[in-house]
Amino acid sequence: MVTIGLDMMGGDYAPLEAVKGASIFLNENKDEIILFLIGDEEKINAVLNKYPLKSNKYSIVHAPQVIKMHEHPTKALKEKQQSSIAVGFHLLATGKIDAFISAGNTGAMLVGALFSIKTIEGVLRPTIGAYIPRENGSLGLLVDVGLNSDCKPENLNQFAILGSLFAEHVLNIATPKVGLVNLGEEEGKGNILTQTTYPLLKENKQINFVGNIEGRDILIDKADVMVCEGFTGNVVLKMAESVYDIVKRRNIEDEHFNRFNFETYGGVPILGVNKPVIIGHGISGATAFKNMINIACKMIATDLSAKIKASFVA
Amino acid sequence: MVTIGLDMMGGDYAPLEAVKGASIFLNENKDEIILFLIGDEEKINAVLNKYPLKSNKYSIVHAPQVIKMHEHPTKALKEKQQSSIAVGFHLLATGKIDAFISAGNTGAMLVGALFSIKTIEGVLRPTIGAYIPRENGSLGLLVDVGLNSDCKPENLNQFAILGSLFAEHVLNIATPKVGLVNLGEEEGKGNILTQTTYPLLKENKQINFVGNIEGRDILIDKADVMVCEGFTGNVVLKMAESVYDIVKRRNIEDEHFNRFNFETYGGVPILGVNKPVIIGHGISGATAFKNMINIACKMIATDLSAKIKASFVA
Repeated sequence: MVTIGLDMMGGDYAPLEAVKGASIFLNENKDEIILFLIGDEEKINAVLNKYPLKSNKYSIVHAPQVIKMHEHPTKALKEKQQSSIAVGFHLLATGKIDAFISAGNTGAMLVGALFSIKTIEGVLRPTIGAYIPRENGSLGLLVDVGLNSDCKPENLNQFAILGSLFAEHVLNIATPKVGLVNLGEEEGKGNILTQTTYPLLKENKQINFVGNIEGRDILIDKADVMVCEGFTGNVVLKMAESVYDIVKRRNIEDEHFNRFNFETYGGVPILGVNKPVIIGHGISGATAFKNMINIACKMIATDLSAKIKASFVA
Repeated sequence: MVTIGLDMMGGDYAPLEAVKGASIFLNENKDEIILFLIGDEEKINAVLNKYPLKSNKYSIVHAPQVIKMHEHPTKALKEKQQSSIAVGFHLLATGKIDAFISAGNTGAMLVGALFSIKTIEGVLRPTIGAYIPRENGSLGLLVDVGLNSDCKPENLNQFAILGSLFAEHVLNIATPKVGLVNLGEEEGKGNILTQTTYPLLKENKQINFVGNIEGRDILIDKADVMVCEGFTGNVVLKMAESVYDIVKRRNIEDEHFNRFNFETYGGVPILGVNKPVIIGHGISGATAFKNMINIACKMIATDLSAKIKASFVA
């Protein structure tokens, strides 16, 4: 039996969209999975009265406090120990749940993860990636997208390993191609960081390094895992998101560009911490919540955390 | 009288597209401008026989050698002193021409500019920007886009000044808004570079600093001059170029996305050197060449170089 904790108070449309997402998941799911809906019981029940879950595979865990989107993460977690995020990490750390999902305060999710379940031994810095849709229908992973804005070569080398394992086990890409985001294709090109990272990736036997990729390669499938520091990754991701906004504003209907709606992907795991933790977009809707639960299931089913730990054994 | 030198041997379609571009320019232009077509006289004449220029406002300057696209810049310039690029810079340095344009070897153009006409006193590093089309039909400037992949805060501060002057005098934007490309809007966000650059831009009285801009703001008109180091700028620019490729591949017809065809803009000046030097895309076509000549005219007419020099007086 698998148990997954879902923060019902996180995101702009809480708890309504979280309830709807849980509902879709429970209707579709055939596995032995129980959802713990964490949040203000009264508010959750008010929504459940209108949108009842057609399943007995869930329980409500009361958490009367809420950490709002712009609260200071460390301070909020310390002062609001009965918040849905604090309760969620408590359940995760004690093994009551196998994964924790929230579309709430990103900073609080990060701090909570680092303090409760902690970084995997050997991982210098956990990372967060983003899915990049490609025209062939598959998803690539851009990593890091903002958690680590200043990086050392060894950080990027580790992101490559973390991203590869995620791409292989959760995105189902066999021996994912790893590319280093750079300003030229040839070895030796780049800024100081990428020039010194290249040899590390080239010698890294744990990954399938395909060399440098340029900005023009990010939206195609030249590499499955695209490695960069979080500054460039963040700018690139937000620009890709804005392409979707422009496409919609201009009434362009296109199957591929529709997949630039990054809200639908649901969220990304914090890679490099000891247990599955998934952070969603603040504007997550029902589909996003459902997808996040599915990603958590996949991470649990493939025991991704154990595979990452095995990769970082000294 | 203004004289502009055009490298006829640079670019993938040389000298045909350069001749066509010169032809369009000469047909449209009413000012007292003379073009110097620099390159292999025989090859230029072969094209002129098929596409004669309907004007007597041009002269051919014979330069028998060609620096190819992938030659080592410094070595090639030294060994091929009769190349169109070397001859062009010689004419520019000696005052025979007022501006020099090439779609040839970018590295050779840079090295040639730095060695012949030199950097403006006070400018730590010249920079190259790129035009970014916005939905309102105007163009923004992203600067730097690859010339300087590792930067110090003072470099970005200077790019802001150089970009502002170009936007004001050549793009006709009064008091252009300058934004710092960053991963969050609030002051204090960012990597070490942007955190330390922010206060410099804020205190810089020569520019109209509007604060941080995010990846989602690059394709809109939140800022007219978007400042970043050349690594991020290069990745962002090439990704924007690839959006155009995807749009074309998917048979989407849209006026705005058609403007993502970066080839049409023709080229960008090296900002911070003593005279107007414009570098074009290798795949420049006739329109691109014509536009480059027009940009050169504008830089000469507004005496942009003098305005930049005045801004950098100690």
